[in-house]
Amino acid sequence: MSVIATPQQLEASRAARRAYRAGHAQPTSGVAPGLTQANLIAVPADWAFETLLYAQRNPKPCPVLEVIEQGQVESMLARGSDIRRDIGRYRIWRDGELTEEVADATDAWSEHPDLVAFLIGCSFTFETGLAEAGIPIRHQELGRNVPMYRTSIDCTPAGRLRGEMVVSMRPIPASRVADAVQISGRTPAVHGAPVHIGDPQSLGIADLSRPDFGDAPEVRDGEIPVFWACGVTPQAAIMESRPPFAVTHAPGYMFITDVPDAEYLV
Amino acid sequence: MSVIATPQQLEASRAARRAYRAGHAQPTSGVAPGLTQANLIAVPADWAFETLLYAQRNPKPCPVLEVIEQGQVESMLARGSDIRRDIGRYRIWRDGELTEEVADATDAWSEHPDLVAFLIGCSFTFETGLAEAGIPIRHQELGRNVPMYRTSIDCTPAGRLRGEMVVSMRPIPASRVADAVQISGRTPAVHGAPVHIGDPQSLGIADLSRPDFGDAPEVRDGEIPVFWACGVTPQAAIMESRPPFAVTHAPGYMFITDVPDAEYLV
Repeated sequence: MSVIATPQQLEASRAARRAYRAGHAQPTSGVAPGLTQANLIAVPADWAFETLLYAQRNPKPCPVLEVIEQGQVESMLARGSDIRRDIGRYRIWRDGELTEEVADATDAWSEHPDLVAFLIGCSFTFETGLAEAGIPIRHQELGRNVPMYRTSIDCTPAGRLRGEMVVSMRPIPASRVADAVQISGRTPAVHGAPVHIGDPQSLGIADLSRPDFGDAPEVRDGEIPVFWACGVTPQAAIMESRPPFAVTHAPGYMFITDVPDAEYLV
Repeated sequence: MSVIATPQQLEASRAARRAYRAGHAQPTSGVAPGLTQANLIAVPADWAFETLLYAQRNPKPCPVLEVIEQGQVESMLARGSDIRRDIGRYRIWRDGELTEEVADATDAWSEHPDLVAFLIGCSFTFETGLAEAGIPIRHQELGRNVPMYRTSIDCTPAGRLRGEMVVSMRPIPASRVADAVQISGRTPAVHGAPVHIGDPQSLGIADLSRPDFGDAPEVRDGEIPVFWACGVTPQAAIMESRPPFAVTHAPGYMFITDVPDAEYLV
């Protein structure tokens, strides 16, 4: 499809990118509603093929929206953007260790001018559809970051890259779980249908109240925990595979594009 | 999904691969029905990233089902297979020129042991769904190869790779065109919905009766030509971008996997 954003939407996305570029730091859930947000992972050029292959082999957690090649910093999904500056909070990784969190990654790109950046789809895209169908998005209601968990599900390796799948969790009323499956299933290019419904332990999640990323959830009576593949999965691969250098967004602080969520509907 | 082939289907796919390996040469439309067939493009390792990126940027014509890395010849989609031998007819390309058609590509792999092979989805996958819905598949009825055309639509370049989109065409009764869109749209990972319906000239196709690949079509009264993105598109990129060496299948002579077509339904 080629769905075009409205002028109001474009104004909102540009204003958001300007604010983040100016140093504003706030999770992006609910920001510039209806426009696609993306996870970031940038690696040195000699890791680029393996990263793209890892994504191809693990499309549910790693749906690639765009690859920004070596020497480029503008995303084609957001005219006038600068991938080094327009995210609210970046993580810098050295040999698989998180060494810094910064509001501007220009220095990282200066240090490694051969970085290739991957924009990966985000589950916030199908939250638009869930909300439109009247399915509550708890973490938005509470003004929190979505809870994310490392799991015991191994992704398919690619060359030097391996790691487990990371999932995001939303508590869904039992009567709406089927709807949530069908609605998110309509965006297969952006994580698609859940990977798991209802039993955290079989995913290797010992304690739902202690996510590995994001904020603690609130699961109410009659609600089922529903798990979607998450674009933070490449960060788990960095931790395990230890490339010499990498830059990612901080979980919950996404890159905001000018592309309507509806673009990814089938 | 994880749809499992029936024992009868697996027997058919293995028998077909054995026959092609033994030298049998016949287009694969209708062979091992219900199992996914794939296009092949294999390039030297230093073209692999650009090829994967070209596919990522042009997912409708180039949906990647599998990447078989340097040094490997077995497809994970077909246990016991040998990608060098199990296709009925291969094309060998040197500097963008088609130099040979062979029944066995073992020599090509010996000449270039660093080949990385890409299996690309094939429109035969959604033909299963069309046939089940009672939509006639003319080229199958006539025992011919599907007609394919180079178009005036440019694909998005990736590094050194560029070229136009190739499409396959099926004449569909006007009353069933909408059904054909919806049915093929359910397999977005395998070309998905048509890219164009009804007007060959606006695709740059001057004469429908003279396809660039495959056999001439037969369009009857009341039928509309419907065009789908085609996995022969990488061959057009080879012609235009002239990598030093490449191996592909010959159009219509696909690689037969053990994966049910239903695996790619959303």
